[in-house]
Amino acid sequence: MKTAIIQLAISDDLEKNRAKIKSNIEQCAKAGADLVVLSELHDTPYFCQTEDAENFTLAIEIPSVATDYYAAIARENGVVLLASFFEKRAAGLYHNTAVVFDTDGSIAGKYRKMHIPDDPAYYEKFYFTPGDFGFTPIKTSVGNLGVMICFDQWFPEAARLMTLAGADILIYPTAIGWEIGDTPAEQQRQREAWITVQRGHAVANGLPVIACNRVGWESGAEPFVGIDFWGSSFAAGAQGEILAQAADREEENLLVDIDFSRTEEVRQIWTFLRDRRIDAYEGILKRFID
Amino acid sequence: MKTAIIQLAISDDLEKNRAKIKSNIEQCAKAGADLVVLSELHDTPYFCQTEDAENFTLAIEIPSVATDYYAAIARENGVVLLASFFEKRAAGLYHNTAVVFDTDGSIAGKYRKMHIPDDPAYYEKFYFTPGDFGFTPIKTSVGNLGVMICFDQWFPEAARLMTLAGADILIYPTAIGWEIGDTPAEQQRQREAWITVQRGHAVANGLPVIACNRVGWESGAEPFVGIDFWGSSFAAGAQGEILAQAADREEENLLVDIDFSRTEEVRQIWTFLRDRRIDAYEGILKRFID
Repeated sequence: MKTAIIQLAISDDLEKNRAKIKSNIEQCAKAGADLVVLSELHDTPYFCQTEDAENFTLAIEIPSVATDYYAAIARENGVVLLASFFEKRAAGLYHNTAVVFDTDGSIAGKYRKMHIPDDPAYYEKFYFTPGDFGFTPIKTSVGNLGVMICFDQWFPEAARLMTLAGADILIYPTAIGWEIGDTPAEQQRQREAWITVQRGHAVANGLPVIACNRVGWESGAEPFVGIDFWGSSFAAGAQGEILAQAADREEENLLVDIDFSRTEEVRQIWTFLRDRRIDAYEGILKRFID
Repeated sequence: MKTAIIQLAISDDLEKNRAKIKSNIEQCAKAGADLVVLSELHDTPYFCQTEDAENFTLAIEIPSVATDYYAAIARENGVVLLASFFEKRAAGLYHNTAVVFDTDGSIAGKYRKMHIPDDPAYYEKFYFTPGDFGFTPIKTSVGNLGVMICFDQWFPEAARLMTLAGADILIYPTAIGWEIGDTPAEQQRQREAWITVQRGHAVANGLPVIACNRVGWESGAEPFVGIDFWGSSFAAGAQGEILAQAADREEENLLVDIDFSRTEEVRQIWTFLRDRRIDAYEGILKRFID
């Protein structure tokens, strides 16, 4: 399966963002992409840098003209498309939601971000109610996509549950970057940790993993001057090996061939699913064992 | 806390192995080590390369003269010592067991390997009954040690459970190497995966991780000529960053300073323990969700 990971900088101009994304998807489809992955909340700047009720006007319903726009792109280009939206479910009830469109433009499935962060300049608990779909892969014509979103990528439980539910691949649209007040050493530790923990999910579960991040500077509100999104989108194989990686400062359409058959080979030599001690894991359901 | 990771090649001569280990521990203690970590089953060659009932004679009781030997070394050198044994629990009942001695030579605690591998040249299911202590850190004068053993290192559930039970650090004595029939590229993917998944546990749980591997060639039985143990013992910090790493071909006493206070700083910026979706993790207790 040829996958395209579209790593873009996002501007304040929503129409311009959508037009640029459409153009990039068309390029990737011409290059042979079967699956196209966009980054988290790609239509708008990362508005969670501040808590502002005005931003709820950015939310869209699913389906709506916003999802119809991407459905048409998927259909016209014959690709499976993973898009990401600020979902309005009801007045006062919003989610951070990924939508997968199949090649005919139909909605193959949705995933609502389960783990919601909240730390300075990432005030997501103000905007997003935690997802209530659990960890269920989305069936598409290219395979079972274990779609999760950003902060989910730090939680091994989420990766494992998607695996146990039959995911062929884990895919994380994301929006993560540096705080410029941090030292360069701390910035690099953070970027490396982000890559490492996701590669670790590939290893532990014996399947490929994709992360699609935004890139570039987006100004914030006082006291946070902004976020320097670190790009570095990548695809890792079933042994955690890096198959392709984008730069940390540039927009890039990253095309990578992913071989799902490698999963079975790897799992036959690394028998982790065979040997899990499910009789001894009950403490995982606790907040802390004290 | 200054930690010593003793990466050794193991010979067929048990007395020689023990004498060499003692000498190395003494060197590390003189260099200021507070905690000394030995590799898995360090007293003997890796006998699991074949299924041979004769090898059960290698098993020792706990306590016994074998553990007394290490208890005395810990006491004489004033170090906390993590040793690893083929434990005879009863006739026909054996475990792969780590024992931690405190600085007074007392047994601070034991850990019985929970996940038992079984693949060509690693026939551990023949020798070891899976552990029945669960994942409980061992309390010592230098901290709560989340001791696990080798194959456990591939399971994120185990790392998480030790963390939730209050481990200050995860420590994996191990015996893992290359099959020389594999291509160099495959060998490097395996070594890198082994490092990556453990660094991933550090990231996901916000605590330091140590792996202590054996090194060098040990001949096997037909049809397996032997295992090329890949060394590469390492310590990673609470963001998964490599603090120190040994070579893949050499014996080495790796000394590294580990700062437990970093855990709290890291967990305050990376709020994974705060945000786990324990309401949605029940599937972890299943073999597969089908």
